[in-house]
Amino acid sequence: MNMNLPLITVNGVLGAQISPMDRGFAYGDGVFETCRVHCGKITFWALHLERLLTSAERLKIPIAEAQLLTYRDELLQLLSTAQLESAVLKITITRGVGGRGYGLPQQVAPTYCLGVFPSLPLLSDQYLQGVAVRICSQRLSQSPALAGMKHMNRLEHILARSEWGDEFNEGLLLDVQGNVIEATVSNLFLVNDGCLITPDLTLAGVAGIMRRLIIERFAPELGLNVVIRSVDIDVIGGAQELFLCNSVFGIWPVVHLATAPMLPSTPGAVTRSLQHCLTESFK
Amino acid sequence: MNMNLPLITVNGVLGAQISPMDRGFAYGDGVFETCRVHCGKITFWALHLERLLTSAERLKIPIAEAQLLTYRDELLQLLSTAQLESAVLKITITRGVGGRGYGLPQQVAPTYCLGVFPSLPLLSDQYLQGVAVRICSQRLSQSPALAGMKHMNRLEHILARSEWGDEFNEGLLLDVQGNVIEATVSNLFLVNDGCLITPDLTLAGVAGIMRRLIIERFAPELGLNVVIRSVDIDVIGGAQELFLCNSVFGIWPVVHLATAPMLPSTPGAVTRSLQHCLTESFK
Repeated sequence: MNMNLPLITVNGVLGAQISPMDRGFAYGDGVFETCRVHCGKITFWALHLERLLTSAERLKIPIAEAQLLTYRDELLQLLSTAQLESAVLKITITRGVGGRGYGLPQQVAPTYCLGVFPSLPLLSDQYLQGVAVRICSQRLSQSPALAGMKHMNRLEHILARSEWGDEFNEGLLLDVQGNVIEATVSNLFLVNDGCLITPDLTLAGVAGIMRRLIIERFAPELGLNVVIRSVDIDVIGGAQELFLCNSVFGIWPVVHLATAPMLPSTPGAVTRSLQHCLTESFK
Repeated sequence: MNMNLPLITVNGVLGAQISPMDRGFAYGDGVFETCRVHCGKITFWALHLERLLTSAERLKIPIAEAQLLTYRDELLQLLSTAQLESAVLKITITRGVGGRGYGLPQQVAPTYCLGVFPSLPLLSDQYLQGVAVRICSQRLSQSPALAGMKHMNRLEHILARSEWGDEFNEGLLLDVQGNVIEATVSNLFLVNDGCLITPDLTLAGVAGIMRRLIIERFAPELGLNVVIRSVDIDVIGGAQELFLCNSVFGIWPVVHLATAPMLPSTPGAVTRSLQHCLTESFK
């Protein structure tokens, strides 16, 4: 069966649209997840669900988990019918329709918007040969109440991404204090003497699922220590290896960075080992 | 003619909805204005339009001004048919429909969403007798690239507003450094010895139209100096008068503030004079 993507449901209805009174539209009042679908299954679903529920709780959005799972299963069923091998699933949950004004509606009925998008193969050129990365001028603000979440207020990331076209694969983001935080759609790791270093995200940034997997599962499997701390831009230039990660593209070795000409121009051994952990986890 | 509000058009179509692929929905990627409509006319329209165009330019959203004016006029025509004396007009403009990801679409067709909402009379109890204000725990992040704009990334304001119910009329917002910036839906002025002081909004906050009117028109009319500077929370407690302002409710005297028990419990003379300037400007 041929299937035109994206395929989007709103509250379970295929092709439905969003009310202009939806608070997701009015104020970016919601959260989202972007997951890789592989052979009909959502990879690392439990972690995505956990982040979604935790973030919604921080924002006081009452997600109905059973409802979400129903919508998810209906969409996966459509994918299965189409025999689509791999795809990207985006789940957006907002505080639903409300009145004018910031005050929370008395009765909140969240909006569940699920979309299936085409995906590139995991073993892309970027995955295999590495990527070129720049440093963005746009800084991230520090907001402890919002840090770590994949919420829908993304203007800073949009402005950062608008700084370049196709000449780089990603851009690093610093916060207003000059700490390196992440890249526009991915998290950053440094490798030094068998130790992984990744920026602290207490004040800014999105705590990615692939970042969590590397910290909690792949690094221990490989006997690598992980240090989460503030990272200065100068430290990056001296790293033995650098890589980026997210749930969709997996792990990308960084082989070119404007400020670090001494970076090896081929993917490093530790990055390769972590990629191996990832592909093994898909089996 | 009886008319049920809100009355909302999307790209000129009454009752239309928003695509789930709209970047306003996905990322809060847009700007909005909230204006008071009085006797069929949008008050201070030129200033609202100017802020809209300036903000869109900062966000690289190519607003088609003629298109916007057409949609505006069609909606005002509907109001005129209904002989609606006063209302609130909300104009939302987003970067329109795009793909998944933060990168700007190659061809941007902005979404124009215009809504008419019921309004309270300008001469409300709050306007006449003053309001009670609290201090919010939620802080505003500092983001020079976004400060001043009425953009659609409003999670911090939503979290702030969720801290209380009906027991106060407004809540003051400090930034992460502890500077007083604004209230959740209005700007703040202090009055001291015939001088107006209002917080600097270079790093955070929304530069309101009523604030601008007071600074550029009403204060000069009354021979009052205006100082725009960083404002410490302690300074507020010692102010002779305090007031809040926005385009919808006008000017509200503050007569109760948790941290300033010495504040006069009736509206001050300077605040009254500014209110007089405002009501005169409606004639």
